[in-house]
Amino acid sequence: MTASRPAGQHTVRRHNRALVLRTVAADEPVSRARIAAGTGLTRGTVSSLVAELLAAGLVAELAVARGATGRPASPLQLNRSGPGGLGVEIGVDAVGACVVDLTGAVRAQRVAASGHRTRPVADGLRAAAGLAAEVVGEAGLPVAGVGLAVPGVVADGVLERAPNLPSWRDVDVVARAAAVLAPVVGGAPVSVGNEADLAALAEHRAGAAGDDFLYVSGGVGVGAGIVLGGRLFGGSGGRAGELGHVVVDPTGPLCTCGGRGCLERAAGLEDLCRAAVVDDLDALADAATRHEPTAEAALRAGGHALGVALAGAVNLLDVPTVVLGGGYPRLGAVLRAAVVDELARRVVWRSPVAVRTSALGAVAALRGAATSVVRGVLDG
Amino acid sequence: MTASRPAGQHTVRRHNRALVLRTVAADEPVSRARIAAGTGLTRGTVSSLVAELLAAGLVAELAVARGATGRPASPLQLNRSGPGGLGVEIGVDAVGACVVDLTGAVRAQRVAASGHRTRPVADGLRAAAGLAAEVVGEAGLPVAGVGLAVPGVVADGVLERAPNLPSWRDVDVVARAAAVLAPVVGGAPVSVGNEADLAALAEHRAGAAGDDFLYVSGGVGVGAGIVLGGRLFGGSGGRAGELGHVVVDPTGPLCTCGGRGCLERAAGLEDLCRAAVVDDLDALADAATRHEPTAEAALRAGGHALGVALAGAVNLLDVPTVVLGGGYPRLGAVLRAAVVDELARRVVWRSPVAVRTSALGAVAALRGAATSVVRGVLDG
Repeated sequence: MTASRPAGQHTVRRHNRALVLRTVAADEPVSRARIAAGTGLTRGTVSSLVAELLAAGLVAELAVARGATGRPASPLQLNRSGPGGLGVEIGVDAVGACVVDLTGAVRAQRVAASGHRTRPVADGLRAAAGLAAEVVGEAGLPVAGVGLAVPGVVADGVLERAPNLPSWRDVDVVARAAAVLAPVVGGAPVSVGNEADLAALAEHRAGAAGDDFLYVSGGVGVGAGIVLGGRLFGGSGGRAGELGHVVVDPTGPLCTCGGRGCLERAAGLEDLCRAAVVDDLDALADAATRHEPTAEAALRAGGHALGVALAGAVNLLDVPTVVLGGGYPRLGAVLRAAVVDELARRVVWRSPVAVRTSALGAVAALRGAATSVVRGVLDG
Repeated sequence: MTASRPAGQHTVRRHNRALVLRTVAADEPVSRARIAAGTGLTRGTVSSLVAELLAAGLVAELAVARGATGRPASPLQLNRSGPGGLGVEIGVDAVGACVVDLTGAVRAQRVAASGHRTRPVADGLRAAAGLAAEVVGEAGLPVAGVGLAVPGVVADGVLERAPNLPSWRDVDVVARAAAVLAPVVGGAPVSVGNEADLAALAEHRAGAAGDDFLYVSGGVGVGAGIVLGGRLFGGSGGRAGELGHVVVDPTGPLCTCGGRGCLERAAGLEDLCRAAVVDDLDALADAATRHEPTAEAALRAGGHALGVALAGAVNLLDVPTVVLGGGYPRLGAVLRAAVVDELARRVVWRSPVAVRTSALGAVAALRGAATSVVRGVLDG
């Protein structure tokens, strides 16, 4: 048993400054008086903390208005010209970059095809940096930091393994991305996260899924981001959510991870396309829209496998909601129905599990990477 | 985004009292001066909080000794005659009761066979209350509270479902146990938990598994208790850890939960006994010791199924350690070797997952139920 330190005063000012900033974010436009009423802080404390936030460029004062008492009210809001977040995604077959402002609004965004399976890490970073320069130029905001999304297992800032990018192994992506992006963002700090985790955070910000859900990202790989109590659940080392390598058929086909019968081999987009005898996601989505029988059979089988793995995850994690994201939202009702069916049959408790479809689709991870920077700023 | 309340002073005294108590628990015997040095509190504050803890019977003062300065030192320790925790377990085929003192030491314990599959809830509670009266009498401590362990899904104090006790559905076990136990413990508060969760807490207290692990309880059912950062992980509703109903073979045999091919059907003790063609756990353990081929084949197959499910759980939860508990520790090396093999093959990251065997065995849940009461007292 470890004794913690006593409650002290030294973190109180910082805590209260973050509290004021979050109150502005939640209730903008809002007066100093309303902030004081809402937080329980004195008006003097609020004024002093607001002065700091104005000086840091985080909040802005709107034109002076007359309050109910006739005194000036000067409502505050987040500064739309204040520091923004740069999101960068390096996927298996694409790169993207995006800038959001302090409110989370997208100010510039680009996605481009760029295959990385057989190319070195440096090529992926260079392609991403090119897009980053474009979006930063277009957005015209100072960059507070960079969030990088990658399709692999991330722990302590290191990309340990990306089964679909075999040469990306134990890569210190934070340091490498910081070096490549320095001409674009100067010394702004870089953080890295698993793409499904960052997509789940974007889904959380979008709000429809609530504070407790499992987001599953359907791509070449299948990953999950788990949100519990409104926060990303990382497990003990930050690697949680490798749903793609949960086994759905112990004697099934070999997987890129070295295992056998992983979900990814049954419900990854490439395997679904192969089963549906189509070339790519566009063709698969088109075939699903036309109710083409081979495609529907493939989606049904993939959906049942996905449902089996998701039921296991729900039984282990106790989450009330599952969000189908990545490429899955484009694949129609058949896949979703199979997921719903397996969850109803296999989840132990009786409350039904809600199955939602992500509204953000393929750009969710990119959006989450950018907004994670802004959340860091707002959390002080 | 919800704004939290500002840091205030109103919880500080309570926080500091708990801090002093935890310091006594961690470092006993310990002087007031050392508590002050270790916590950063003033000596006056420590003396005043210690006086409260002495009055509440939570700590005791040892015989006065001379400190280095020649002044009396009066070391403090947890009060061995202070309030203890009563643990009660109602299993599928057994009941148990146990009293631990504030240090977690067992002061009295009884376990008895008692089958509940086809009997009503009241019978199980009555059998448990009988044992509880015996251990409380024997221990001779005031009872601070009761922890009840049950083999099912618990949320908000309600036993929602126990697949192996079909009539125990949506039972308010807290209220029912409090009524039945009132003659034994008066109005002491009752809490309830899943047996695997409580066993995992006992395993955590025993210390060998560290602060991050998944404990799997092998019984008629198979459950898991997940400890992350030294705390029980409950998921969003407290139901997390239903490992027994993770699918290991989608086309496998029907399960009591209504699903098909659940782990419980491949690695639950009754199914292992059936596959090994023996009557019960004692016979299975004996056959394993004798390296009887049918038993070894059954344990190998069960171990592989367990390993497949555990690999999925590790991929989802990122835990570095798995603890085999309940009846599994009695089943020898073959089952464990199969688990190790599947984890090595199927966990995505490279760090090997440690596989430990629980030292507490079948009484872990009972012990955890009792110590959970004491932890509640110590946490203030």
